[in-house]
Amino acid sequence: MNGLPLPAWGLSKARLQILEFVTAVTADDGPHYVVPADRIAVFDNDGTLWSERPVVQGAFTIDRIKAMAPDHPEWTATQPYQGVLEGDFEAVAASGDQALGELLMVTHTGITTEEFTALVGDWIATAKHPTTGALYTDMVYQPMLELLAYLRANDFATYIVSGGEIVFMRAFAEEVYGIPPEQVIGSSIETAYEMREEGPALVRQPAIDFVDDGPGKPVAIEHFIGRRPLICFGNSDGDHEMLQWTAAGECPRLMGLIHHTDGEREWAYDKDARPGGLESALTEARERDWIVVDMKNDWTVVHKYAADAA
Amino acid sequence: MNGLPLPAWGLSKARLQILEFVTAVTADDGPHYVVPADRIAVFDNDGTLWSERPVVQGAFTIDRIKAMAPDHPEWTATQPYQGVLEGDFEAVAASGDQALGELLMVTHTGITTEEFTALVGDWIATAKHPTTGALYTDMVYQPMLELLAYLRANDFATYIVSGGEIVFMRAFAEEVYGIPPEQVIGSSIETAYEMREEGPALVRQPAIDFVDDGPGKPVAIEHFIGRRPLICFGNSDGDHEMLQWTAAGECPRLMGLIHHTDGEREWAYDKDARPGGLESALTEARERDWIVVDMKNDWTVVHKYAADAA
Repeated sequence: MNGLPLPAWGLSKARLQILEFVTAVTADDGPHYVVPADRIAVFDNDGTLWSERPVVQGAFTIDRIKAMAPDHPEWTATQPYQGVLEGDFEAVAASGDQALGELLMVTHTGITTEEFTALVGDWIATAKHPTTGALYTDMVYQPMLELLAYLRANDFATYIVSGGEIVFMRAFAEEVYGIPPEQVIGSSIETAYEMREEGPALVRQPAIDFVDDGPGKPVAIEHFIGRRPLICFGNSDGDHEMLQWTAAGECPRLMGLIHHTDGEREWAYDKDARPGGLESALTEARERDWIVVDMKNDWTVVHKYAADAA
Repeated sequence: MNGLPLPAWGLSKARLQILEFVTAVTADDGPHYVVPADRIAVFDNDGTLWSERPVVQGAFTIDRIKAMAPDHPEWTATQPYQGVLEGDFEAVAASGDQALGELLMVTHTGITTEEFTALVGDWIATAKHPTTGALYTDMVYQPMLELLAYLRANDFATYIVSGGEIVFMRAFAEEVYGIPPEQVIGSSIETAYEMREEGPALVRQPAIDFVDDGPGKPVAIEHFIGRRPLICFGNSDGDHEMLQWTAAGECPRLMGLIHHTDGEREWAYDKDARPGGLESALTEARERDWIVVDMKNDWTVVHKYAADAA
């Protein structure tokens, strides 16, 4: 069986919807043909391309605080740092949004883009999930890796459009997903150009530049790409607006939601989840016959590490 | 003579510098080989790819004010509108930067991205230069069109990185330069996602989001592309930082300045010009043997309309 693409999608309706759509838009003698330049596919990252329990950027943040703690003895008695160091995440959460923002700034800014990229690259090369023991980079979804490869083989450009920080994701997106930096779109940190003695540097400032979530996603898609996507996949209400924006384009489009229904191989959650809350987008997806992936029943394998072991 | 690339660059040293560089980085058995994915070339637009006397986006702004004036009878007695309508640009300039910003907002915002793109597309299809009578889109530099095509034939991605507004430039960049929207980087207007009765819309808000000039250029290059360019061309001190940022990369890089020395076929200006002031970047270019294009002596033809007529 080395024939039909997307084997990890099993005998699902979703697989057929994808195959049918891609066949239609690539048939250059058909009524739905789309030129390669307009074949844009956008994907949320956390919960859509890899697991988000925990959010990997959050795990990085915690590990950075621990790594930085020796230089900050005061953290052992200061929230939210103390909570992070002691693993007391109720205390961390109780310190409020501003304190959480401070954790982000302390761990993600004040250094150059190159330095931050190196930190993330070093960390993610060995960081493992606390319960599965798998590398985070092996907790990407095998069916989505197949989908990305299948789309690229059909001349699609595959973009990430994620709430995750853009430089954080670029540090691994090419190796993990085959997605080059210019096709990674995310939230961003203010950055300043500085001429230093050793040469020019781009320095990450302690301020948020853009939040790429919800209504920010179609805005970012237009800003970075300047074309409306043909294909859009997400997994939460934070992806609802980019799904709507994609769906509103002329000519056929393909919209998909990953529904986390598999409490055994992954995690089962939807409307009350945080992050990853899914309610309004799921309702619209069902009404409009967008793809809704039932992870438990549609995917023959979930994670890359499980596929590699099989 | 259908052989050596870049014929409009004549017998200039600049032509040899370009040919030598591109040959070196594309020779896969050579010491300076660069993989295609890293072949990024960035270009300023106004004064680098086409003439900036006047700045074309400024001409659009003036024509938009005239087109909108019938709906704004009060403009005939209100600056800076009155000055624009009467062609009294001293009065316009005297109204100050805030008033000039107002002209930009009135003509560039309050409508959707799609509507603005259509306005620019319609305008630029027929708008002509006041003294040459040529379409603005025929006042692009023939040697730069050759350079863009030559680089793309050698698997470079060719980006615009301009102070011009990003959506404005995208309306014509693909047709005029062969540069697709996702490779056009510019200044930007705040944009909001709105769900309207007829569907979702991206609406341009009356506020500047980002100014892509000077130190903003390397910041934008990192933000959009996430790789350091291999080649960078500009024509003013507003391009100095992106030239420095490019030059500071490891492995050989190619930096170039277009020096406006041709008062006959184009306009002659440098350090005291506004826009297009060129002083610090020219000094550094000469010190470091970056390409300095002497338009008058290096280019056998300047504008596309002249090349087409020849």
